[in-house]
Amino acid sequence: MLFRSPVLISISSSGASPVLARKLRAQLESSLPARWGRLADLMARFRQPLKEKLDNIGARRLFWEQTLDSPVVEKVLAGKDSEAEAMLAAAIESADAASLSRGEVYLVGAGPGDPDLLTFRALRLLQKADVVLYDRLVGKGIVDLARRDAELVYVGKARDKHALPQDNINELLVHYAKQGKKVCRLKGGDPFIFGRGGEEIDLIVAEGIDFQVVPGITAASGCASYAGIPLTHRDHAQSVRFVTGHRKDGSVDLDWEHLVGEHETVVFYMGLVGLREICSQLIAHGRAGDTPIALVSRGTTNLQEVITGTLNQLPDDIEGREIHAPTLIIVGSVVSLHPKFNWFKP
Amino acid sequence: MLFRSPVLISISSSGASPVLARKLRAQLESSLPARWGRLADLMARFRQPLKEKLDNIGARRLFWEQTLDSPVVEKVLAGKDSEAEAMLAAAIESADAASLSRGEVYLVGAGPGDPDLLTFRALRLLQKADVVLYDRLVGKGIVDLARRDAELVYVGKARDKHALPQDNINELLVHYAKQGKKVCRLKGGDPFIFGRGGEEIDLIVAEGIDFQVVPGITAASGCASYAGIPLTHRDHAQSVRFVTGHRKDGSVDLDWEHLVGEHETVVFYMGLVGLREICSQLIAHGRAGDTPIALVSRGTTNLQEVITGTLNQLPDDIEGREIHAPTLIIVGSVVSLHPKFNWFKP
Repeated sequence: MLFRSPVLISISSSGASPVLARKLRAQLESSLPARWGRLADLMARFRQPLKEKLDNIGARRLFWEQTLDSPVVEKVLAGKDSEAEAMLAAAIESADAASLSRGEVYLVGAGPGDPDLLTFRALRLLQKADVVLYDRLVGKGIVDLARRDAELVYVGKARDKHALPQDNINELLVHYAKQGKKVCRLKGGDPFIFGRGGEEIDLIVAEGIDFQVVPGITAASGCASYAGIPLTHRDHAQSVRFVTGHRKDGSVDLDWEHLVGEHETVVFYMGLVGLREICSQLIAHGRAGDTPIALVSRGTTNLQEVITGTLNQLPDDIEGREIHAPTLIIVGSVVSLHPKFNWFKP
Repeated sequence: MLFRSPVLISISSSGASPVLARKLRAQLESSLPARWGRLADLMARFRQPLKEKLDNIGARRLFWEQTLDSPVVEKVLAGKDSEAEAMLAAAIESADAASLSRGEVYLVGAGPGDPDLLTFRALRLLQKADVVLYDRLVGKGIVDLARRDAELVYVGKARDKHALPQDNINELLVHYAKQGKKVCRLKGGDPFIFGRGGEEIDLIVAEGIDFQVVPGITAASGCASYAGIPLTHRDHAQSVRFVTGHRKDGSVDLDWEHLVGEHETVVFYMGLVGLREICSQLIAHGRAGDTPIALVSRGTTNLQEVITGTLNQLPDDIEGREIHAPTLIIVGSVVSLHPKFNWFKP
């Protein structure tokens, strides 16, 4: 916007509140150091030499993308202009059109729901992507942050109702990357915690395609903070465990004997449909019937709902009540802290 | 910077690379929608009415801070100017100096090390804070993002060597909040996963002070992504467990019997000093001696080092070798994927 309309200039001259000005300045300072101007000058000086080296405009665009992610930028920002210039000259000297237009896959965790919980790295790679493949669990506000000219592909998964079978997603990633595209695979939560991230990059690795993995705030972490339930706590739990155990027939397949440590919090991902079985199995294997349990529905969003109870009673308590997915289940005495620490009231 | 020097203007007119321009534009668009100008105008129109309502300049600053975090902003950005105006008028009508200058505590997770893994929400609250209390594990690049006029207080913790005892930290938070300050308690990782977050807000709650909790990327999640070790994987682990077990005497206190599930990944936080005991106890309780294990030292940073081995041999392998804190230990067959998925080569 900035380059098309003089919004900023009008802000600075309209006598607007200094709070707004400071707020904008603070936001901008982190992303826009003052020496960007020198970087622009440096790049302008090397435009012609690069043109002589690479005649393909796409390859030149990618060269500059890489340069802006390279130590050249830090050198300029640190005031070491002649070192930066030497590095840039060397980079142009060794620039290779074939390797520049190579595709790449970014496996990116989008966090638990609230777009405010996206990381800077996730945003940066999302905005670099030519194609974005996203899930049902990725907030719409997040997908909107992609480049306007990026291709958006919905590959959403609901339980037992995959929009695209996993193998097709893996193949799509390879397909786009082989076209030389930067592909962002955007997933709810964290790609390496129940995110099938390992499965998705398997084929990528086998095909020799470059990739990066960006962690996201996993649902357990997001829901714990927003529901005021510490997952570990000196007086309650010295460890925490994340489990999932859905079978296609709706039953739950878990190693119950190892799940009953008293001083441990257990978080079940996507377990609402198996709630009754989870409660009865935990009790059958020795966990006390009055152990506190919480359901966090649509955690971290403005629609968050937290329902607490005990292993004995919660399944009956919620009988017939509509609870919206995604739902996370937290079991352990830390849940008793929720009424006290419940700060988030959307 | 922007408000002091015409950097952006010089960029847009110097004929710099369109890639740089697009890059900046992409970064700015997410933080600077075009209608901010209209918001500035709206605020300017209401400056005088607010002045008549609140004669204290500090209270007015806080009023605007709140307004910029309120639905008024979304209304303006959505083009609903008259609704925004009505909301703002009502907010000024009910503005109350006493409640505005109330202190507040933000318990914020700063992530595992790489400043790029900070969330937007974390940055926003960090920049709102008058005082920032930070740990040893918070990257310096992150603390630098605080407001220039914020007071920075180091309360760092090393194991067995607390710069400040925990009780003093809790009391400091209350002390600053009671002065009417916005206090950011910045912690490495996630405040509710081995972050003592629950302990720190206990006193805050007892004193009736407002607070918020912002999750961060926990070390296990960050190190897993950057070391190419999925914590869960269809072929390897259906669950993951985070444990810590330090005693002051250096020994490890864990519920070993429950720690030996074959299809589970176990992550030990801050466990390097107990490595030998961890390996021998896991074997003694039934985990195979050739189970893969990884040490991730200074994970997600440019100094990241990953050392892999087996429960049988790793303690001997690293004997006498210097390994820098913080170190995370990952145990389970997922570690065998590291050579294949190891994309991050700092």
